[in-house]
Amino acid sequence: MSSNSEIDALIDLMAKLPGLGPRSARRAVLHLIRKRALLLTPLSDAMQQVAATARECLNCGNVGTTDICDICNSEDRATGELCVVEDVADLWAMERAGVFKGRYHVLGGTLSALDGVGPDDLRIPRLRDRVTAENITEVILALNATVDGQTTAHYIADQLEGQVRLTSLAQGVPIGGELDYLDDGTITAALRARKEL
Amino acid sequence: MSSNSEIDALIDLMAKLPGLGPRSARRAVLHLIRKRALLLTPLSDAMQQVAATARECLNCGNVGTTDICDICNSEDRATGELCVVEDVADLWAMERAGVFKGRYHVLGGTLSALDGVGPDDLRIPRLRDRVTAENITEVILALNATVDGQTTAHYIADQLEGQVRLTSLAQGVPIGGELDYLDDGTITAALRARKEL
Repeated sequence: MSSNSEIDALIDLMAKLPGLGPRSARRAVLHLIRKRALLLTPLSDAMQQVAATARECLNCGNVGTTDICDICNSEDRATGELCVVEDVADLWAMERAGVFKGRYHVLGGTLSALDGVGPDDLRIPRLRDRVTAENITEVILALNATVDGQTTAHYIADQLEGQVRLTSLAQGVPIGGELDYLDDGTITAALRARKEL
Repeated sequence: MSSNSEIDALIDLMAKLPGLGPRSARRAVLHLIRKRALLLTPLSDAMQQVAATARECLNCGNVGTTDICDICNSEDRATGELCVVEDVADLWAMERAGVFKGRYHVLGGTLSALDGVGPDDLRIPRLRDRVTAENITEVILALNATVDGQTTAHYIADQLEGQVRLTSLAQGVPIGGELDYLDDGTITAALRARKEL
């Protein structure tokens, strides 16, 4: 669209990023060209760096720059608690909250009969090994509150029953949430799990 | 947030792109890491290429990889018509429509008393020179239908009055537009400029 093949190639690649379409990709590329020294060159360098160094932790599936990630390497985090999440983005969200001091296990997705994803396509066999090898006493299932997420949570609970304490994140009204804007399922869950004041 | 400085640096830079915030930047970076060979490396290379070659056309302000852009270089486009736009993105939008066969002049913004942008901060003096040098017969003011855009159009019209034919893009109902969703200003403009069937 810019009558220029290099710039068009960059726009096409940018448009493949999640959250960007052709229009926002064009806008981003023009912004990058205007801020060449401040943004375009540093961004290109940072991407090269990450392309060269990023890898999945062989133990938990977190993304980092070492074979075993910082969390798995840290002795401080060997609390016996293991938090199971679907995705690296979920692990990062937990870390931002900064309240969980144990280790993680990233499944890499959820079981899905529709998409043909079985237990061996996820990091579920590895989870069983870790529970034994790392003296895990509690497995916290922090899976998304979707149908596939909850199916996966039940499957894992079945597999590990009797070996460790199994817990899941509480469901209820989010902090700052207004009842009027909540769906029926959330209100039902919050009412069922109501607490004494 | 990823407990890793290289990846965090990339996320921070991505979050500076227009249309991306911290959350979508994290999502984009995870996507890039997953599609390393298909997307991350090609994107980094394309950025480097553009950083090294992109420049503004000395004549019209278009972005390209040569000192004088393809449009200004093409003799076919010396039709005597000059289309004045605010921004390179507007030039690209006109080119996508594919209907204008003349040349462009990119102002690089609009006059704005509030932001202290005067005629000499834009490519307005250069526009006057081009009208003479390139035997321009018609200047089409394709500025945005905003207050600043229209102020700038009036200023340019004052400057060039008597030298060339001055026109502006028609205002009215957009193709596919529904009256119910249009603002009063557009409906007023469309009614005033009504045409015989």
